[in-house]
Amino acid sequence: MRVLGIDPGLTRCGVGIIESAPGRRVSLIHVDVLRTPAQMPLENRLANIHFELSDLISRYQPQAIAIERVFAQSNVRTVMGTAQVSGIGLLIAAQMGIDVKTYTPSEVKAAVSGNGRADKAQVTSMVTRILNLENPPKPADAADALAIAICHSWRGASMQRIEAAVNKVVK
Amino acid sequence: MRVLGIDPGLTRCGVGIIESAPGRRVSLIHVDVLRTPAQMPLENRLANIHFELSDLISRYQPQAIAIERVFAQSNVRTVMGTAQVSGIGLLIAAQMGIDVKTYTPSEVKAAVSGNGRADKAQVTSMVTRILNLENPPKPADAADALAIAICHSWRGASMQRIEAAVNKVVK
Repeated sequence: MRVLGIDPGLTRCGVGIIESAPGRRVSLIHVDVLRTPAQMPLENRLANIHFELSDLISRYQPQAIAIERVFAQSNVRTVMGTAQVSGIGLLIAAQMGIDVKTYTPSEVKAAVSGNGRADKAQVTSMVTRILNLENPPKPADAADALAIAICHSWRGASMQRIEAAVNKVVK
Repeated sequence: MRVLGIDPGLTRCGVGIIESAPGRRVSLIHVDVLRTPAQMPLENRLANIHFELSDLISRYQPQAIAIERVFAQSNVRTVMGTAQVSGIGLLIAAQMGIDVKTYTPSEVKAAVSGNGRADKAQVTSMVTRILNLENPPKPADAADALAIAICHSWRGASMQRIEAAVNKVVK
């Protein structure tokens, strides 16, 4: 299954696409950071991100989208922009009929490192190891987007195993 | 000039369209509240609102869109949804090439009532008077959307008068 992970942001929006195989094997397909300049009007920044995300989805055809869930813990101005970008990711998924899920930062960190409080360096290092990369993914910001995609892929696989087990027992 | 005012919200999104004539004359064209059920997945709620707003714009062809600016003062969960809906309004404006501005709640209240701290009842009563309506606009929630549209229309007119005066002096 091909999964697009999105780490939403107005100034930098991380995007990472992975392909997952049975078991926990995952491989890197594409990674990037979409940027919009702070001096651009907000509506144009959002339209740019909408265009870039739609283009990415058309090119790579993911079967699922996973987006980091936004919290209002940090700077209010930043959080509003982040919420708007995540909203655009959700909108595109619904319009294109692609499954979409959101995950909290702790869920993502726990999924890739086993520790919901892992720091940025630990997440990057785990993503590098999991995807079997020679060097850490570049740009560094995009490691989070890959972590979100890995989180979705593994959690989905676990859910399927659980459902299969339940079905076996039921039958 | 025809202005669409949007009071963004996931559960209730107020929309009000007014037509302004020279001076401060404004008249009601359309007013409504778009609703999405809380139990619907977030991505579908956003897609519904996107569809409804786009449809409204196609039908009424506003030349400008005014959206209430979101603050993180209230409930975090509500604010995120509100930010996402306002982001969708901004996105549509940019994609359709329609001028869009955001206004704070105090700017809107001050514009229609002369008091930046006016309460909901005062805003509704002023909107009813300004638009020369026999009864307060229904649904009540939508009065805010009309106030936002009036705010934009009057502030725009003031800016034009100032610019005209400046040009006269310069010439």
